[in-house]
Amino acid sequence: MTTIGDLGEFGLIARLTGGLPLGPDVALGPGDDAAVVAAPDGRVVATCDLLVEDRHFRRDWSSPYDIGRKAAAQNLADVAAMGARPTALLVGLAAPAATDAAWAQRLYAGLADECAEAGASVAGGDVVAAPAVTLAITALGDLGGRPPLTRSGARPGDLVAVRGRLGFSSAGLEALRRGEREPAELVEAHRRPRPPYEAAEEARAAGATALLDVSDGLLQDLGHIADASGVRVEIDSAAVPVPAVLGPDGLRHALTGGEDHAFAGTFPPAAKPPSTWAVIGRVAEGTGVVVDGRPYGPGGWDHFRG
Amino acid sequence: MTTIGDLGEFGLIARLTGGLPLGPDVALGPGDDAAVVAAPDGRVVATCDLLVEDRHFRRDWSSPYDIGRKAAAQNLADVAAMGARPTALLVGLAAPAATDAAWAQRLYAGLADECAEAGASVAGGDVVAAPAVTLAITALGDLGGRPPLTRSGARPGDLVAVRGRLGFSSAGLEALRRGEREPAELVEAHRRPRPPYEAAEEARAAGATALLDVSDGLLQDLGHIADASGVRVEIDSAAVPVPAVLGPDGLRHALTGGEDHAFAGTFPPAAKPPSTWAVIGRVAEGTGVVVDGRPYGPGGWDHFRG
Repeated sequence: MTTIGDLGEFGLIARLTGGLPLGPDVALGPGDDAAVVAAPDGRVVATCDLLVEDRHFRRDWSSPYDIGRKAAAQNLADVAAMGARPTALLVGLAAPAATDAAWAQRLYAGLADECAEAGASVAGGDVVAAPAVTLAITALGDLGGRPPLTRSGARPGDLVAVRGRLGFSSAGLEALRRGEREPAELVEAHRRPRPPYEAAEEARAAGATALLDVSDGLLQDLGHIADASGVRVEIDSAAVPVPAVLGPDGLRHALTGGEDHAFAGTFPPAAKPPSTWAVIGRVAEGTGVVVDGRPYGPGGWDHFRG
Repeated sequence: MTTIGDLGEFGLIARLTGGLPLGPDVALGPGDDAAVVAAPDGRVVATCDLLVEDRHFRRDWSSPYDIGRKAAAQNLADVAAMGARPTALLVGLAAPAATDAAWAQRLYAGLADECAEAGASVAGGDVVAAPAVTLAITALGDLGGRPPLTRSGARPGDLVAVRGRLGFSSAGLEALRRGEREPAELVEAHRRPRPPYEAAEEARAAGATALLDVSDGLLQDLGHIADASGVRVEIDSAAVPVPAVLGPDGLRHALTGGEDHAFAGTFPPAAKPPSTWAVIGRVAEGTGVVVDGRPYGPGGWDHFRG
């Protein structure tokens, strides 16, 4: 086994980035002080997330390839949720020197494949030694001359709609915590979210007034739209997609489970949400998030149910 | 004491970013899925670094303010070294839940003040809980319609010149490791590098063919220029600035010490380097770095001296 410590910083960077395809948006890739990435809009959308071992992923539950896909996906989804086209990723990897270099290479393969799915590529990054594996992912994107789709544009009367899986990752995580590997669909969803990146473009085309990706849980994230827009978001729980595979606690998972990176948006009542989206509620005057007429409070779902 | 765990993710973000000034390049700051930063050039320069507690900084040796300044400086210097104007920083902070929120606020004050020095501002980021403090800094910059200043443009006949302190951080670190706090100038330099950001603009104006900031040590970093440009870099050690404060081992510190983030560049012989720069050698045909006629090898300084 060749460890990343054997390779050293520059050998590791060469190994990790040498085989990666660079997309047309990367004017200058890894190897200099910084990367140069196309930003034809004249503005760049930029976001970063930290993923810490045993908190955001477990090496015994997820393959390095899936960890890479997940780390990329959650950042690329943030860029898409601004109504932007993802262009590039910067990857900071901290890992113990004894880490198998092949493990790190599979991680990068996952990062690169998820980038390809979203039309982006890995443009640069950093590697350092550390006691635990930590990933710092920065994603960049281009707005193509259009205004960003923020959280603050929802207006009373708008419809609330979602596209993508809800609750799958959360239900999969509970299965893993019980020591189970089934249902495979849920466990796989926890290991590798599948943001429907094209949903952001659909939302923009349909005139969405606000958009975000569901990172922390549908109700919590809709609360961000309510806060930023100064409105109330009213949800009809019977309209929330809850596939049978989610099990008896499916509605809880769908409403409060994070990390699926579905997209949730608000649409003017005259502008029909795309047919691929599920309408789950409406925007009203007021504050906060209301489910079936009952306020969803800071105590979360358990408090809400009590 | 209020800990960052007491505040929670969103309370902490509000506390950390609430008082920060947003520069004119930040079209949309913290609080949405992503930030939006001006990129008038139509390209964006982007770099990221990870800083891990007890590896890149020690909380008992450096104040949070200085850690913030240093973390920002090393990334802003990378952007400047591409010949770009720094515009914004994204800050990922991983820290134990028991961390004093005031400590984190002072860290952000340091980040913000270093940004201000370079003309940038903190545009967004992420906070997560983790066993050790880890900082993931992304810096963005704008080329202003000019080509990037890479490592690959040096040509035989060019002059090699540096601007900024060399060896100060390394000598300061050795003092700290000996349990000393003197000379204060060196210890302070280790805690807070002072990249001469304006040097990058000076280098461009003087027609620099290659430019980088000295992160890992002058000879090692000049080796990157030699490799990327396919040339030999010849250094005259007597021309390298070695102030007396560096002590008896001053030349070693100046040639091999990292983290001062001085700028090193190559200049066509006809184009005089700026008067604020010290000419320390020349570019020749060949490979590698040569000091006083002797090749500087992969074994580093000790091997070189042996």
